Amino acid sequence: MKEIIRAKNSGFCFGVDRAVNEAFSIINPKGKTYTLGPLIHNKDVTNKLSEKGINEISVEEIKNLTENDTVIIRTHGVALDIYDELKGKRVEIIDLTCPYVINIQKKVKEYYDKRYKIVILGDKNHPEVIGINGYCENSAYITKTGNIDTPLNGKICVVSQTTEKQENWLTLINNIAKTAKEFVAFNTICKATEDRQKSAEEISKEVDVMIVIGGKSSSNTTKLYEICKKNCDRTFLIENAKDLVAIKENIKDAVKVGITAGASTPEWIIKEAMENL
Amino acid sequence: MKEIIRAKNSGFCFGVDRAVNEAFSIINPKGKTYTLGPLIHNKDVTNKLSEKGINEISVEEIKNLTENDTVIIRTHGVALDIYDELKGKRVEIIDLTCPYVINIQKKVKEYYDKRYKIVILGDKNHPEVIGINGYCENSAYITKTGNIDTPLNGKICVVSQTTEKQENWLTLINNIAKTAKEFVAFNTICKATEDRQKSAEEISKEVDVMIVIGGKSSSNTTKLYEICKKNCDRTFLIENAKDLVAIKENIKDAVKVGITAGASTPEWIIKEAMENL
Repeated sequence: MKEIIRAKNSGFCFGVDRAVNEAFSIINPKGKTYTLGPLIHNKDVTNKLSEKGINEISVEEIKNLTENDTVIIRTHGVALDIYDELKGKRVEIIDLTCPYVINIQKKVKEYYDKRYKIVILGDKNHPEVIGINGYCENSAYITKTGNIDTPLNGKICVVSQTTEKQENWLTLINNIAKTAKEFVAFNTICKATEDRQKSAEEISKEVDVMIVIGGKSSSNTTKLYEICKKNCDRTFLIENAKDLVAIKENIKDAVKVGITAGASTPEWIIKEAMENL
Repeated sequence: MKEIIRAKNSGFCFGVDRAVNEAFSIINPKGKTYTLGPLIHNKDVTNKLSEKGINEISVEEIKNLTENDTVIIRTHGVALDIYDELKGKRVEIIDLTCPYVINIQKKVKEYYDKRYKIVILGDKNHPEVIGINGYCENSAYITKTGNIDTPLNGKICVVSQTTEKQENWLTLINNIAKTAKEFVAFNTICKATEDRQKSAEEISKEVDVMIVIGGKSSSNTTKLYEICKKNCDRTFLIENAKDLVAIKENIKDAVKVGITAGASTPEWIIKEAMENL
C-alpha cells in the first residue's frame, strides 16, 4: 500500500460528540443511570458506558424505573408521549437529542397543528423517525426511497431524517410536486451528513479500495457504504481494526486506500484502523 | 375529412369569460372607458370593444386620464404601484383581475413581507408576471423554463404564472430543491390551464392534424401549440377561420382533425372554424 487517504469529514458529528462527552461526564447520580436504547451505534462506546454503570433500557422498561433513576435520551430524540411517560415516572432526564433533530420535531409539530399532512423521508424503523413521527400523532407518510405509492394532495410539509441521502430528497420532492398544489419543504439532512457524504464520494472515485468504518446498524454508515460502493467496487464496511483481518486478501494489492467513518465512530477507532492498515 | 374532435376543455376560462361579460355590460359611463392593455389576446373581441367605445391605453398614458374616466384592469392584474397610480388619478377602476391571479399576488406579498425570496415560473414580459412581481417590489427571480442560472439559497417562496406548463414547474422545483434548505411551493398553474393542456395532449396523440385556435401573442395558446406539436407533427396555430385557407393544402387528406382553443378564444370563433373545416 502506498497511500492512505482519509476523507475530510469523517467520524463523530457535533451532536454525537456532545452526547458522548455528556454521558461520560455524569458523576455521582442518585440512583441508576440508563440510556433509552444504545447511546450511539458503536459497541466499543456502549461497552465503555456499561463499565461506568450506564446501561441500556428499552421503552418497555420505563415502567420499572424509580424516582432516583436517571434516563439519558440519545441524539435521535424520542416521541412526545415517551417524554411524557418519563416525566410521569419523575426520573431525572438528561436530554441529549441533537439540536438539529429538535428543530425537525418542532417544525413537524408546528405544521401538524396547522393541519398540514406530514411527510418524512427516512426509515420508519429508525429511532429518529419514530421520534419525529411522534410529534404529529404518528400520522406521517414515511418513505425511505422518496418514492410514494399514493398521490399526496392538500397542504403538505416535508422533512427528512438528518442522515438521509440528498438524491432521495430530490426524488421525494419531485414526486410531491407532481400532485401537491401547496407544500413546504425543509431539507433537514444535516450539514455534517451532507459534508461527510460528499467527501466520501469524492475520495471513493480516486482510490482502489475504500474502507467505511462504522456500526452495521448505523443508518448514516450504511449510506456512506452505498455511496462509496457506487464509485469503488472494492468498498468494505468494518466496525473496527479487528475486521481488517477478514478483508486482508482483498486489499493487499491496493495502491491507494480511502477511509471514511460514520457519525458514531469514535476517533480512536479510526486511528487504530489506519495504523493497522 | 371524416372526423373533427374538439378537446373537452377549450376556449374561454372562468376568468376571461367573466372579464369579457363585465366589459361588454358596461353602460353609460360618465367619461371615457379604457382597458389597460388589450382586454384579452383576441383582436375580434378587442375590435368589438372599440366599436362600443372602449379602447386600449398603455401604462404610460395613465397620466392623461381625468376623474370622469373609467379604467378596466384585465384578468392578468397589475402591480401595486399601477393600482395606486390609478387611485391617485381618481378614475373609476373596474378590476377584472382573475381571482386565481389575485391569490398569487397575495401569497407573494405575504411571503415577501416574511422576507422570503420570491421565485416566479413564467415569462418576465408577460403582464401577469409583471403584475405579480410588483407585489414583491420587483425583486422576484423569474424563469421561463424552470432552469436557474444561480443557486437559490435562504428561504424561498415559489409560484407560477397561471398558464405555465406542469413540466416546467417540475424542472423548477427540482432545481430549487438542489440548493434551498427551506422553501414553500404554491403550484398556481390554474386548473383550467391544466385541464386544457391535458385534453389537448390526449387528442393530439390520436389525430392526423391538430388545429390550435388562439392569439399568436397569447401565452397559453402558444403553450397548447407546443404541447400538441410534440405529439402531432401537423399542428397548426390559427387565429380564426380565415387562417384555414393558408393551411388548406396541409390538411386536405387528414382523416381525423383535432381542435383546441386558448383561454382567450371566444366560442363563436371556435364554432366558425369548425364549420369551415
